[in-house]
Amino acid sequence: MSFRPAAAVGMPLAEVDTPCLMLELDAFERNLKRLPESLHGRNIRLRPHAKSHKCPEIALRQIALGAAGVCVQKVSEAEALIAGGVKDILVANEVVGAPKVKLLAELNKRAHVAVCADDAGNVAALDAAARAAGVKLDVLVEVDVGAGRCGVQPGAPVVALAQQITASGNLRFAGLQAYQGSAQHIRKVDERRDAITRAVGHVRATTRLLGEAGIACDYVTGAGTGSYMFEAASSVYHELQAGSYIFMDADYAKNEWTESGIPQFEHSLFVWTTVMSAPAPERVVVDAGLKASSIDSGMPRVADYADVDYVKASDEHGVLQSRGATRFKVGDKLKLIPGHCDPTVNLYDWFVCMRNGRVEALWPITARGALL
Amino acid sequence: MSFRPAAAVGMPLAEVDTPCLMLELDAFERNLKRLPESLHGRNIRLRPHAKSHKCPEIALRQIALGAAGVCVQKVSEAEALIAGGVKDILVANEVVGAPKVKLLAELNKRAHVAVCADDAGNVAALDAAARAAGVKLDVLVEVDVGAGRCGVQPGAPVVALAQQITASGNLRFAGLQAYQGSAQHIRKVDERRDAITRAVGHVRATTRLLGEAGIACDYVTGAGTGSYMFEAASSVYHELQAGSYIFMDADYAKNEWTESGIPQFEHSLFVWTTVMSAPAPERVVVDAGLKASSIDSGMPRVADYADVDYVKASDEHGVLQSRGATRFKVGDKLKLIPGHCDPTVNLYDWFVCMRNGRVEALWPITARGALL
Repeated sequence: MSFRPAAAVGMPLAEVDTPCLMLELDAFERNLKRLPESLHGRNIRLRPHAKSHKCPEIALRQIALGAAGVCVQKVSEAEALIAGGVKDILVANEVVGAPKVKLLAELNKRAHVAVCADDAGNVAALDAAARAAGVKLDVLVEVDVGAGRCGVQPGAPVVALAQQITASGNLRFAGLQAYQGSAQHIRKVDERRDAITRAVGHVRATTRLLGEAGIACDYVTGAGTGSYMFEAASSVYHELQAGSYIFMDADYAKNEWTESGIPQFEHSLFVWTTVMSAPAPERVVVDAGLKASSIDSGMPRVADYADVDYVKASDEHGVLQSRGATRFKVGDKLKLIPGHCDPTVNLYDWFVCMRNGRVEALWPITARGALL
Repeated sequence: MSFRPAAAVGMPLAEVDTPCLMLELDAFERNLKRLPESLHGRNIRLRPHAKSHKCPEIALRQIALGAAGVCVQKVSEAEALIAGGVKDILVANEVVGAPKVKLLAELNKRAHVAVCADDAGNVAALDAAARAAGVKLDVLVEVDVGAGRCGVQPGAPVVALAQQITASGNLRFAGLQAYQGSAQHIRKVDERRDAITRAVGHVRATTRLLGEAGIACDYVTGAGTGSYMFEAASSVYHELQAGSYIFMDADYAKNEWTESGIPQFEHSLFVWTTVMSAPAPERVVVDAGLKASSIDSGMPRVADYADVDYVKASDEHGVLQSRGATRFKVGDKLKLIPGHCDPTVNLYDWFVCMRNGRVEALWPITARGALL
């Protein structure tokens, strides 16, 4: 059920079939280095989020550049990455339900796989599964630092759950998951910084309470591509979870970056597409629609042609409209910048890796579809 | 790279892991029969669109109930369905680019695979590929009957392209692809009917012109779940391409159906999901987000709980908000009705087929990810 790749190694760009997911290796490698370099001199670890790429080849490159390991959202993603050679994983999310909790515990015999929790019943289930598997499981308490999604409220609820974890024979209280997800795409730098300042305040108050309860907390993890330098400068975070920096999608590109201290990352991820119909001079249809580029965070952008907009997506078609002199004909190929990299990557089985106009490698997206 | 299914045959519903794509077989089978039954006494064929299900198991059931074959959008979908035993396929779309055109021609040695065209250069490429493969290829001219996507304009441009096809040694002019895609989700019945009436007018004028040019046209194909009875009643269409009727997603359910003559179809396709976090009494988080249910046509609906809304999706999370008395706790499982079935099906490798509360079968979504 896995499809053949759209290209072969060595093939020139013009021959690569469409639609496919294309990774420009030079830009990708610059992004890959730029984030850890931007942390130079700071006492903070990087644990990139692998839900963006779902690819062991990329995880291992991040680790080779100093990352402590990677994050995932799903235990089946952890399984796929462990099979690809990754040894240290944080499931930066709750894992709920008997088969998943069992798998999580079992995986700890092959790699270090920590997990987050925000519920007493779930902590009890994790403890039972760890006992059954004969492992000691690292559990972080997820604290809601403003995103309004998962996590217990800062302060006393965190202490109560940490105490339960500490009292569980097969669990170890590992620290706090404190990701402010809703801050990442706040466009204005000042407002984004303010959201993280509030998150840092919640973390600081909570770790103080934990200390008063006699519970050491030497591991606070969180942050994303949009905000990570603010967490890095806070002195309360120990680890950063940015993921999208390697690809830089169209939605993140709409953020204001100046004065943030966060370097500009380059678009390295593209959907390569063909003009399949040219019904009017200024309006053509490409073969990449909803199943080739997720539109949850806006339409893809057309790369290299500033006067052309991707205006409408249906299942297998995208309509391009020219506002200027650009005219395409049937058979022309062009690059789209996905609106949102994570769910777009999840549509493909392969990264077609390009350098100097030729296919250098094909990397399998091993955790594509890893929903469990 | 294909993931294990979320269930095993015989498993009770409560044990099925999440998120997964669940097909309620009783409702599905009623839908499967209801559409052909609604055409009883009319001289019209059904060729359901397989882009909705991408599954040979379903295609073969549609054909067993009298369908002439199926439609697909991609030549790689045709390949997957032929491997699953389907013998008659219409690629209801243009196929552009050397590797795809070659594959299309080659597949005609194993099955009947017709294709659409709207461009003279593409017709020449199809002819060359058919000659190289030693096959005669059936080509339909796609005519834009109001959707404003692919297709040549009605009238003279269709005649010119049909003449080119007729003059090509390795092609046969098979008829007209006349799908009014933008009519399918017009909510009001009268407006939807009017859009199809205009499409029918374009088809009628065009077939008359073809006849005057000495080109017989005994095959006009089109229509979708939202409009098919209007095309069926028109006397100019020979074949209907409805696909979503088997599943009935939340977007189609918003259409007004009374007075259309189109039977009500039932929701048979669901995303089975678990409450993974319960941060507030009226607000919980489920484990099905953007990668489990496409939101291009709106958020999924919560089945069985009229007072609960799915209000926000992120990659791996969905936020549910209760407007009433319903309260969920961590570990509860529930069903979502996808906003748009086609791109949601494309996120999964398996249909988990349920009957009487147990898993009856697991059907592979063989053409999942078939983008080429």
